[in-house]
Amino acid sequence: MLTVYGDSISGNCLKVKWTAEKLAIPYRWRELDVLRAETRTPDFLALNPAGQVPLVILPDGRALAQSNAIIVHLAEGSDLIPADSYDRAKMFEWLFWEQYSHEPYVAVARFQMAYLGKPRHELDSKLVERGKAALQRLADGLEETDFLVGNSVSLADVSLVAYTRVAHEGGFDLAAWPRVVAWVARVEAALGIV
Amino acid sequence: MLTVYGDSISGNCLKVKWTAEKLAIPYRWRELDVLRAETRTPDFLALNPAGQVPLVILPDGRALAQSNAIIVHLAEGSDLIPADSYDRAKMFEWLFWEQYSHEPYVAVARFQMAYLGKPRHELDSKLVERGKAALQRLADGLEETDFLVGNSVSLADVSLVAYTRVAHEGGFDLAAWPRVVAWVARVEAALGIV
Repeated sequence: MLTVYGDSISGNCLKVKWTAEKLAIPYRWRELDVLRAETRTPDFLALNPAGQVPLVILPDGRALAQSNAIIVHLAEGSDLIPADSYDRAKMFEWLFWEQYSHEPYVAVARFQMAYLGKPRHELDSKLVERGKAALQRLADGLEETDFLVGNSVSLADVSLVAYTRVAHEGGFDLAAWPRVVAWVARVEAALGIV
Repeated sequence: MLTVYGDSISGNCLKVKWTAEKLAIPYRWRELDVLRAETRTPDFLALNPAGQVPLVILPDGRALAQSNAIIVHLAEGSDLIPADSYDRAKMFEWLFWEQYSHEPYVAVARFQMAYLGKPRHELDSKLVERGKAALQRLADGLEETDFLVGNSVSLADVSLVAYTRVAHEGGFDLAAWPRVVAWVARVEAALGIV
């Protein structure tokens, strides 16, 4: 069976949980508390020298890291990855964009405010500006379709919804982007996120 | 024919060039100077609202952004993507890691020093520390194999070599990681990089 090492407060970890559940892949969840440095113990570092979650141990015992790489692996051959070659490429475009231009701002602002107790006005202005730009880019990407790639849910939505749905915890008011609010609800419904 | 919009000083853009050439995919190169804001003109923003290169226009006229998404699309079905499912997943692990944990430090330090003229001692210490950590992680990943995924060149090497081979321009002395130096030479030879 698949083993998932994750911290439930981490959107990156929840991506793996949602993908496994959507695809009815059985898994064991091993909760690790990042704030208590449980990902930095010698035991865990032996599994993942990067000291990061999520990490999965596949049924054959081999390890895999990086949230988006994990969900791509779990979803191979499923409807969560578009069959059309261009649509699949657009899905990867969103996945790489998420790690470079969305997560480092939207997720980091939320972590600093909600988990490190930093007041909003003490956040680096770069986090706030680039986080807003990312949410605007997301809204632009939803102008013509219900989901990020066409009209059915894909890993692009799984990945982007993870920190967008909790963006308010980082001080971002999603009311400025009603299209994004509607999309979050649509993705949560499609994935059965409660 | 494929059109590639790119700046030749950008490792992200060179990934696309190397992949196309390795796979003998014909392309037109359209040089844009990032430093002269040629990626911020109305004409280019109409093609890519993110104002970033590389951007490719596929033979059917559709656009695709994000360097790693582009090379994955171009290399579909080729030897640059491992046929084995786990090896392919490890390749994606490296690709996502590159954009999150290597490029933002190794490439950014190089850009600030080599193109903005910042002296090494004025670089943010986070750039230096995390850049070194990324190069160490790369060395660790090459402990048992000639390439990042097994013993033949894959997109993981294409992606990671782009900024590693010019890391010295950001003040990183690769001599500290001889395994990385040997790997750079090996990847350059495999890809025909001169």
